[in-house]
Amino acid sequence: MKEFRLLSRVYEHNAALDARVIIPPGDDMGMIRIGGTDVLAAVDQIVAGRHFTLDSTPLSLIGRKAITRNLSDIAAMAARPVAALVAVVLPREWREPQALELFEAMRATAAKYDCPLIGGDISMADAPLTCSVTVLARPGPRGAIRRKGAKVGDAVYISGRLGGSVDADGGGRHLTFEPRVDLALALAERFDVNAMIDISDGLGCDAGHIAEMSGVQIEIDAASLPCSPGCDWRRAMSDGEDYELCFTLAADADLPAEMEGVMLTRVGVVQERMPDQPLIVVHDGGQVIDASSLGWEHGEGHPT
Amino acid sequence: MKEFRLLSRVYEHNAALDARVIIPPGDDMGMIRIGGTDVLAAVDQIVAGRHFTLDSTPLSLIGRKAITRNLSDIAAMAARPVAALVAVVLPREWREPQALELFEAMRATAAKYDCPLIGGDISMADAPLTCSVTVLARPGPRGAIRRKGAKVGDAVYISGRLGGSVDADGGGRHLTFEPRVDLALALAERFDVNAMIDISDGLGCDAGHIAEMSGVQIEIDAASLPCSPGCDWRRAMSDGEDYELCFTLAADADLPAEMEGVMLTRVGVVQERMPDQPLIVVHDGGQVIDASSLGWEHGEGHPT
Repeated sequence: MKEFRLLSRVYEHNAALDARVIIPPGDDMGMIRIGGTDVLAAVDQIVAGRHFTLDSTPLSLIGRKAITRNLSDIAAMAARPVAALVAVVLPREWREPQALELFEAMRATAAKYDCPLIGGDISMADAPLTCSVTVLARPGPRGAIRRKGAKVGDAVYISGRLGGSVDADGGGRHLTFEPRVDLALALAERFDVNAMIDISDGLGCDAGHIAEMSGVQIEIDAASLPCSPGCDWRRAMSDGEDYELCFTLAADADLPAEMEGVMLTRVGVVQERMPDQPLIVVHDGGQVIDASSLGWEHGEGHPT
Repeated sequence: MKEFRLLSRVYEHNAALDARVIIPPGDDMGMIRIGGTDVLAAVDQIVAGRHFTLDSTPLSLIGRKAITRNLSDIAAMAARPVAALVAVVLPREWREPQALELFEAMRATAAKYDCPLIGGDISMADAPLTCSVTVLARPGPRGAIRRKGAKVGDAVYISGRLGGSVDADGGGRHLTFEPRVDLALALAERFDVNAMIDISDGLGCDAGHIAEMSGVQIEIDAASLPCSPGCDWRRAMSDGEDYELCFTLAADADLPAEMEGVMLTRVGVVQERMPDQPLIVVHDGGQVIDASSLGWEHGEGHPT
């Protein structure tokens, strides 16, 4: 069972959503109008054994990741953090010092990113540790940037480097990554970014969401991909948990090579998608490879 | 480990919350100011084996309860529902039809109460079914009503009847209860309600939260308690999962016996609390009983 597909099916019933819903489910965040103010919201969770290994991961990093994953969704919309709420299922054998260490990590991380914790729930159960985090945000300088909006002719950019985040020799970057909130706001301030997403499931999968929702095809140049040390382009396309940004904007935009201390790399182009063509293709030398199936879903057995 | 106490300890570190946080954690909902608009938010979760029995409960009622518990928190603040987000951990053996049935129940329940689903997350894991729901709301006609605010001399009221909600012969009311959103809004519109809470953990526990946060003592008259059939006052005070409202307002307010089709019963009075006195006392004939320890915490082994 594919989680993304399942959620899509759930949302099919949402056709009659009322006018307050400005961005319906299916983007990095939903957006709703409350008393004339647009508020973005998203929920994401991490489960022991799926998104981290409890025995080998410090509680401080588990708590950090629970929050930063959600901040990465805020970055994907070029939005500003406002508040966070956490619901935690604690294994029944846990004692108070462990619980406090975990919560303190979540609280401190949220506070650091100007996203104060305003609510929480704790249940103890015969269950793996689960941290479900909801974040609220408000649109950045030019409004929320969505997955849809990529235009034929746009250049496709990536922040940072891709691949190897969950490897033992990848430095545990999936636990320590920096959510690109400031970068996204700076980008939106200076450039007309047409579409953006954060890369949590691998570029093949996530750029595929942009292509699908924008009705376009994205062509990636394998040689241009900023791969992490030890990773080839296939791993850069398919490893998950990078939490970098993928975005598109006019090809003639004068984007610097680095903003907010983060490297920016042009990796491809947005082009027209013909019927039955793949969402993503990779040019590798003379070969053209359908990359739509690269990338992974949490829950499909990816090592965490 | 007491969940409520643990959360209180987490929030102690929140002392330096920024000025946007209008209602800090510790009430039924938190409230934050976003672009001049006050937004309420709360998170709550249900876990199989803790809050419901998976084998004997229709998925439609599990999904319903996941949403209505949160709507009850909205009622407790006399607020108006705005949107909901759900994060669900599905047992790995689940198949798509089950998942869709559960989500459809959540979606439809949320929509029915004008609280559209705007985001979601699904993880599959070797874990019990867990539904974590975040709701957003906006303040009602007279602003959010908090747990603190009960005044000495106030009368204490209860909506509906208490006790037996989780009994097999209680009709499964913990699964089918009606969240008191309309009642709360009508009350706030017509009366100066000073403090309110929803009764999820038993009146002894929840009225205790009002007393603690208001710096008062609440005295309950056992004979006046609106007990469910088959329940005595002790069960009315201590059974959980009623999802009725407990509120206080001036004793001379001309509250009708029923509003929005729901019975209202005066059950006690707010009085000064002396040092070392219990938060809640029950008058039963000539006896005065400390009722602060009545009520239960999810996770303390209460049958579900």
